[in-house]
Amino acid sequence: MTFEERLRACAAAVEAHLDARLASFPDTGLASAMRYAVTGGGKRLRGFLVLESAALHGISERDAIGAAAAIEAIHAYSLVHDDLPCMDDDDLRRGKPTVHKAWDEATAVLAGDGLQSFAFELIADGSLPAERRLELSRSLAVASGASGMAYGQALDIAAETAGEPLSLDEITTLQAGKTGALIEWSATAGARMAGADIGPLQGYARALGLAFQIADDILDVEGDEAKTGKRLKKDADAGKATFVSHLGLDGARARARELVDEAIDAVSLYSAQAVYLKEAARFVVSRET
Amino acid sequence: MTFEERLRACAAAVEAHLDARLASFPDTGLASAMRYAVTGGGKRLRGFLVLESAALHGISERDAIGAAAAIEAIHAYSLVHDDLPCMDDDDLRRGKPTVHKAWDEATAVLAGDGLQSFAFELIADGSLPAERRLELSRSLAVASGASGMAYGQALDIAAETAGEPLSLDEITTLQAGKTGALIEWSATAGARMAGADIGPLQGYARALGLAFQIADDILDVEGDEAKTGKRLKKDADAGKATFVSHLGLDGARARARELVDEAIDAVSLYSAQAVYLKEAARFVVSRET
Repeated sequence: MTFEERLRACAAAVEAHLDARLASFPDTGLASAMRYAVTGGGKRLRGFLVLESAALHGISERDAIGAAAAIEAIHAYSLVHDDLPCMDDDDLRRGKPTVHKAWDEATAVLAGDGLQSFAFELIADGSLPAERRLELSRSLAVASGASGMAYGQALDIAAETAGEPLSLDEITTLQAGKTGALIEWSATAGARMAGADIGPLQGYARALGLAFQIADDILDVEGDEAKTGKRLKKDADAGKATFVSHLGLDGARARARELVDEAIDAVSLYSAQAVYLKEAARFVVSRET
Repeated sequence: MTFEERLRACAAAVEAHLDARLASFPDTGLASAMRYAVTGGGKRLRGFLVLESAALHGISERDAIGAAAAIEAIHAYSLVHDDLPCMDDDDLRRGKPTVHKAWDEATAVLAGDGLQSFAFELIADGSLPAERRLELSRSLAVASGASGMAYGQALDIAAETAGEPLSLDEITTLQAGKTGALIEWSATAGARMAGADIGPLQGYARALGLAFQIADDILDVEGDEAKTGKRLKKDADAGKATFVSHLGLDGARARARELVDEAIDAVSLYSAQAVYLKEAARFVVSRET
């Protein structure tokens, strides 16, 4: 199976699980908005990282799929709230109207809230020992909350209010929260499921998360809106400091390549088993969407 | 200890736990907004129900305090989001500016999000067996989400959009989600901690939750804004159907009294031990705030 095939297979498995579990909610605009936000698209990189790190530790897809679906529900909730008029005010996401455009703002707030709760429902599922599922749930709450993803978002808002461009260190801290925390949780989830050392996957994920964000900044400058399905050049238009504004396009590309090498080195102890994780590191800096 | 003293003691214990655990977050506007929203006020009825139902099952305050703090974090998040301009658009809560007034809308969205994550962190704490804590976490996610509290909120939004007043049955369903789900979770939490039958406490909580909401509707009509610290007569101004608009003030009072009796009957098997729960049922229909 090529890396692209494995990524698509993981996405399909996550999508099917989300679909089946969403069916248990009473049929309202809220349930429709949640389904709209969390299904039907996306690379499912976070879900892939969960399933792949699980496979690396001998955990079956059946035992890991709840956690993979949960992280995608958290990711989807963060996008719905991030797109709100009071946040990034975006009309398009993956080429479709954002939730507050397709419904309304109140439904978008609630859909995000409901998706976060849904994630903590999903993660309690399955047949792994209860203490492992509890640890997944606890660590997911930490990664999502006010010292993880929400912390990164808060730094982003504070930077906009302050009006002064952030330093490279500040951007790195911001991104470690905003996108890094969920990526790190995803890549270490398999080790948590097995009660194994999360260290090597943590090193991998930190390099991968940063490479991912640098690639995002590069895409924002030279990407194709028709391919990404979202508004680009937002950062430059807003005068925001990014990895590209600090390092230049070539510098940013070089830094991303270094980080890919770091990520690959971090999982070298898994040898051939980690082939898809290594390819994922190359993939995040070469993607067009 | 009188009921009022017990209620205040529970509130103080929950407040102290929240305070201590909030200190672990990086110091940002987000952390301040979360602290502002979740500490410094409120009767902590939900936290009391958790601690009291735990005591009824021989579970110590130390083992139950994480769950009590968690439900208050969920309740606080729901109020922050409910007060947003796109939802109820309220400027005051417990006599203080709401979070989006004291900070801004983006911070209010994030603070609610962060408080929800915080709840799932808090609930994983403690020394109860992992499967019990996992079950508390799972059931809290269900109670908060798109078949519980968020479902009730969605029905509320749909009713406003439709513009037609709800029937008594529809209001009952709406409230069973919007306020009932968290109250039911709180009152059954102690039984879940002990692996005991949640049936009697579920019966108690369903009657209590409905009585609570009827009392709220009565307060909205004849309450004192200086005491409640929030805007009143909102429902009548909006032409919204309530228990009072359907039953009249006297009819609503009579129904609330019936429900108090039902709640008390439901926990009669616990005999004298459930004295505070019984007094809580009387309290929710006599409160002035």
